[in-house]
Amino acid sequence: MTFREDGAAALEWAARYLEQVGGFPVLAQVEPGDIRSRLPAAPPERGEPFADVLHDLDEILLPGTTHWQSPRFFAYFAASAAEPGILAELLAATLNSVGFIWRTSPASTELEAHTLDWTAQLLGLPAGWHGHIEDSASVSTIAALAAAREANGGRVVVCSKEAHSSVERAARLLGLETRKVPLDDEFRLDAGALDLTDAAALVATVGTTSTAAVDPVPVLADACEAAGVWLHVDAAYAGSAWVCPELRWSQAGVERADSLVVNAHKWLFTPMDCSLLWTRRPEALRSAFSLVPEYLRTSDEAESLSDYGPALGRRFRSLKLWAVLRCYGREGLQARIREAIRLAEVFEGLVRCEPGWEVCAPRHFSLVCFRREGPDADNEELLARVNETGELFISHTRLDGRYVLRLAIGNERTTEADVRRAWDVLRRESASRISVI
Amino acid sequence: MTFREDGAAALEWAARYLEQVGGFPVLAQVEPGDIRSRLPAAPPERGEPFADVLHDLDEILLPGTTHWQSPRFFAYFAASAAEPGILAELLAATLNSVGFIWRTSPASTELEAHTLDWTAQLLGLPAGWHGHIEDSASVSTIAALAAAREANGGRVVVCSKEAHSSVERAARLLGLETRKVPLDDEFRLDAGALDLTDAAALVATVGTTSTAAVDPVPVLADACEAAGVWLHVDAAYAGSAWVCPELRWSQAGVERADSLVVNAHKWLFTPMDCSLLWTRRPEALRSAFSLVPEYLRTSDEAESLSDYGPALGRRFRSLKLWAVLRCYGREGLQARIREAIRLAEVFEGLVRCEPGWEVCAPRHFSLVCFRREGPDADNEELLARVNETGELFISHTRLDGRYVLRLAIGNERTTEADVRRAWDVLRRESASRISVI
Repeated sequence: MTFREDGAAALEWAARYLEQVGGFPVLAQVEPGDIRSRLPAAPPERGEPFADVLHDLDEILLPGTTHWQSPRFFAYFAASAAEPGILAELLAATLNSVGFIWRTSPASTELEAHTLDWTAQLLGLPAGWHGHIEDSASVSTIAALAAAREANGGRVVVCSKEAHSSVERAARLLGLETRKVPLDDEFRLDAGALDLTDAAALVATVGTTSTAAVDPVPVLADACEAAGVWLHVDAAYAGSAWVCPELRWSQAGVERADSLVVNAHKWLFTPMDCSLLWTRRPEALRSAFSLVPEYLRTSDEAESLSDYGPALGRRFRSLKLWAVLRCYGREGLQARIREAIRLAEVFEGLVRCEPGWEVCAPRHFSLVCFRREGPDADNEELLARVNETGELFISHTRLDGRYVLRLAIGNERTTEADVRRAWDVLRRESASRISVI
Repeated sequence: MTFREDGAAALEWAARYLEQVGGFPVLAQVEPGDIRSRLPAAPPERGEPFADVLHDLDEILLPGTTHWQSPRFFAYFAASAAEPGILAELLAATLNSVGFIWRTSPASTELEAHTLDWTAQLLGLPAGWHGHIEDSASVSTIAALAAAREANGGRVVVCSKEAHSSVERAARLLGLETRKVPLDDEFRLDAGALDLTDAAALVATVGTTSTAAVDPVPVLADACEAAGVWLHVDAAYAGSAWVCPELRWSQAGVERADSLVVNAHKWLFTPMDCSLLWTRRPEALRSAFSLVPEYLRTSDEAESLSDYGPALGRRFRSLKLWAVLRCYGREGLQARIREAIRLAEVFEGLVRCEPGWEVCAPRHFSLVCFRREGPDADNEELLARVNETGELFISHTRLDGRYVLRLAIGNERTTEADVRRAWDVLRRESASRISVI
């Protein structure tokens, strides 16, 4: 078989998958070990046709797949890999550029800088910030905090109790302590309880994982400025919302950040992995990471993006972001973000109008935190039961010690019918549980 | 346009690119800033057709592309993205799985563990090691050294002067010092000069970047065992050669390593990025990285691969490795590795037979270090001149203070004709320079 024939089969597989994904159980209905037990224990001696790979993808892997592309994936932060981004990944793999220095991949290096500037314009960020792409917000945060340590000294990373776990992981990796500030009554960092003693950095979150709360960045920026502390803003999820001017209330103060992370693979319709890291202090990142061995020395005066993060070898990640920005445009991105928020409003309204249910946190953006009134155990059981139906997938968090359900909208295929169906399943499973007892 | 139509155009672009790549100038013939100056300063307001993306890929990006897929890419460590791996990236982007815990992507989590076991079998590694995938050897090294620090304490990372720069970068990130051991006369770590005082880890290299030298791992393993120091083996390039039993002389002692990195995207025909990290002490990696927040807690007892490295969000990277292992099989991998080595032998022979040229280091695997006899400046100029022809791309290093050229074979499309042509260009450009003066 040729690349063209195998490729046509792969493409047909992808097209059908995207057409049919709404019909699959969203959460994989398998037990740990099920997939491995169906794979041969030893690798093949002789090469097999690519068609066999596609066959086993259907037969073995698909039943063990949790379908992130499903319109009823509502867990964590739901995401979409848009079609132009998917095809761009095919192209990037074809080129197989490795961008450790400019000359090894000028197009990839310059397109990365350029798409980050484009995205900064779309989000209304200050002009002139330096942007590059890391694989995950975890690694973007490591890069930012390494720069903070380099620039400012200090041995403590300060963040709220609702900051993402990757902040503490990054601090631990860097040999720094984490100090967690208590929350106010809307799950934001309580600026009144802030203590920046010995701080290298403060991480403020715009759109926390639990409730999408927005920390009071302007006040935090004042405090960081006064104390000479690096301000890193984690807007991994909510930052994409800034493409809509009416949502830029949540951007207040961010223009004073030293660094900012927004994950294009979360809510900017770009396939994993594409974490965007901007900084207004690029020299601090360079001084934390730059180290040029002889075999990479050139007479180019061009910038190497590997000087700004942990990895030397870098994929051509900007190609998929470029394809999405090109094919959707500002208007297409805005329309999708606004629709996700509208659907979250619809769901919030359904919960609010139903006796015996409550909304548990202010709704920001496209995430609704809610629960059935009553004991935690009922909600835990409800979550398990609902996810087992395969009709939708939601996740949970804990707020003020209470077990709370989360429904996040972010998949571009999600319609109002999907949201209403999710609500029907929730009510049905909640009722059936009670009737059984 | 539909996904099928746009996809067919993208696939045709990829097929033609792979057919034509040998005809493009290998090293991009552009100056820094050339690409960006041809891109619009602002992102589009309205969505554009995907065909426009393909058009600009040809018109704007391709002239700025250094062609890693070219059969005459001989720089750094030449690599191949094999066709099954390319198509698997299309599939992985279509699924868009995010594997931060088992249940978010059981198939991706289990296939990753399984393909690492398969690869361990192919390479003849000990059974039972724990394997997972990171994006780059840089990040694999960070993970390994973080585990070493966690397990052993110590504040120094010991490696040879020819260890990869990512070792020093990782140590710096972790707040550790680097101690560089001198070399013996074959550019290997001189075990007689080893000092493990206060060491957290020793990094031994199998296949250094400069010359593909192999550090004396058995002796180093003895020393590490005696001193209670973590032994990390960096076989990012050469580890893939172990698929051939006759090359396993270079694996001696590796079975005693605490951790090992092999980059499948270097010489195992897998597209970027796919760095394989094995350890026989998985609990040390877990204790360096594991941290489970409430919103990721589940009742599953299944393993989460994000507990073993810096990133929480993880792409479905194993799919491309699986596709390559399936479609090539052990025999296909062996045949390609052996052919690369044969071609390196051919090139080495040509250099050795030619008066006025010298081979500068023992040839291991598929890398030849050589130079024109005479001053460094002549060789530097020769490198620039040869790369400017676009007919091939080679890189350099410095050995014993001398400027040395490197020709590395790793692209599966490289033929003996490509190698002979490279040699012809080198002789021609060398002669023309002399005749001009």
